Amino acid sequence: MARVVVDVVLKPEILDPQGQAILGALGRLGVTGVTGVRQGKHFELEVEDALDGDALARIADTLLANPVIENYSIRRV
Amino acid sequence: MARVVVDVVLKPEILDPQGQAILGALGRLGVTGVTGVRQGKHFELEVEDALDGDALARIADTLLANPVIENYSIRRV
Repeated sequence: MARVVVDVVLKPEILDPQGQAILGALGRLGVTGVTGVRQGKHFELEVEDALDGDALARIADTLLANPVIENYSIRRV
Repeated sequence: MARVVVDVVLKPEILDPQGQAILGALGRLGVTGVTGVRQGKHFELEVEDALDGDALARIADTLLANPVIENYSIRRV
């Protein structure tokens, strides 16, 4: 068995209201030093070793991310 | 400036209905080889270099994660 992490984030050109809301909250909490926040989705998959990169990319493309507005990265951990 | 990634996931003992829904959908799509899925939140922060680990942990504890039901990890990338 292997563990794979898929992180999905909005494309840079897409507005991220959740990230901006967090940035605003940080300011109201008096936290300084943070100039940008973007929020996305984090998936941890338990997979059989036989599952290759193409299969993982297909899973990410069809189910975990919306390729029109999101980018994703796949890491074996 | 530095980029920091904070990944927030539900604690293992907490039921993850979203992860189970994805696992079910994978089965219906005929994808085999995935035995577990857990979904969480992925944050990418632009921070000033002076912001140290303690400050980042405080941000994660107070705003990004709910320490009662979630664990988080902080990575400088």
